[in-house]
Amino acid sequence: MRATGIALLSLGLAVSALPAAAEGGPAPAPNGIRLPADYKDWRLISPSYRTDKNHVRAILGNDTAIQAARAGKTLPWPDGTVLAKLVWKEAPHERFPAALEPGEFVHVEIMVRDNKRYAATGGWGYARWLGKDLKPYGKDAGFAQECHACHTLVQDTDHEFTRPVSLP
Amino acid sequence: MRATGIALLSLGLAVSALPAAAEGGPAPAPNGIRLPADYKDWRLISPSYRTDKNHVRAILGNDTAIQAARAGKTLPWPDGTVLAKLVWKEAPHERFPAALEPGEFVHVEIMVRDNKRYAATGGWGYARWLGKDLKPYGKDAGFAQECHACHTLVQDTDHEFTRPVSLP
Repeated sequence: MRATGIALLSLGLAVSALPAAAEGGPAPAPNGIRLPADYKDWRLISPSYRTDKNHVRAILGNDTAIQAARAGKTLPWPDGTVLAKLVWKEAPHERFPAALEPGEFVHVEIMVRDNKRYAATGGWGYARWLGKDLKPYGKDAGFAQECHACHTLVQDTDHEFTRPVSLP
Repeated sequence: MRATGIALLSLGLAVSALPAAAEGGPAPAPNGIRLPADYKDWRLISPSYRTDKNHVRAILGNDTAIQAARAGKTLPWPDGTVLAKLVWKEAPHERFPAALEPGEFVHVEIMVRDNKRYAATGGWGYARWLGKDLKPYGKDAGFAQECHACHTLVQDTDHEFTRPVSLP
C-alpha cells in the first residue's frame, strides 16, 4: 500500500491508479499494464539461468499461453497470451552449494500479446515490477521501447527469447 | 508403449503393471510409484540451476504442496504432498548465450509424502523416470535408499533440498 501511495504522488496518476489499490495489486506500469492477480498460479513455460547476472528465472504463462505452447503454435503467440518472468538472485544451497536456488527477489516482468494495442512494440506490451515491493519500472510509457529494442534480437521467434519446454 | 512393454517383460510384472499401460502413463517405478498424470499442470515451487551437472531445473508441486508452501508449513510437509523435479541439460540461447535454457530432457523425479508407507525413507517415497521415454529408474525397490541417503544431508528441512519461493 505504501509503494502504491508513493507511485500515486510521484506520477500524478491519482485517479487512474486508484483501482490498482482497490484491487489489491501493485500500481500499474507507466503504460497502464497491470500485474495479473493470479500470475503465481500460472503454469510453467520454462526455467532458465542467466550467467551474466547470476539470476535464476522461471517463465510462467496464462491459459492462452499454455495452450499455444502445448500445441506448438507460438509463431506467432496468439492474442491474449501473457507471459510472466520471475527473476531472483542466485543463492547457493548452504548444504549443497552446487545447487543455485532463488535468493533475493529481483523483479517480475510480463509480456502481453495484443497486436492492435501494442503495434509499436512488435505486438507485445511490456511491464516490470521491481523487488518485493513490486515498484513499477519506468518513468513514463516510453520505457517499453527499451524492452522492445532488446527483444528485436529475437524478432524471428516473435520477439520472445524463451522457448516453451516440451514435457514427456 | 514400447517402454512399458519392455518393463513388463524384464520385471515380470505383467499383471500388476498392466494398469500403467491402460492409464496411458509410463511404467511405474520399481517401488510401485506412478508418475502423476497431471504433473505438467502443477504450480511452481522453485526453479534452480545445478553447476556440477549443468542442469536447468524446475520443481513443481501438487495442490497439497502448494497450499503448504504458501502457508509456510513445510516442516514437515503434510501427507499427500507430491513434488516433481524436472531436469534438463543446459542449452545456451543461440542469440543470447548468457541465458542457459532447457536443452535435452534428462529426467523427472517425484517425492511423495506418506509417513506410514515410506517410513523407511524418512516418510518420502522416491521415483525417477529417465529421458523422453520416461524409463523407470532402478532395478528393484531398493533404489530408493540411494535417493534417501543423499537427502539425509537435509534431514533438518524434512529431507527436502528445495525451499519454496515466496512470490510478492
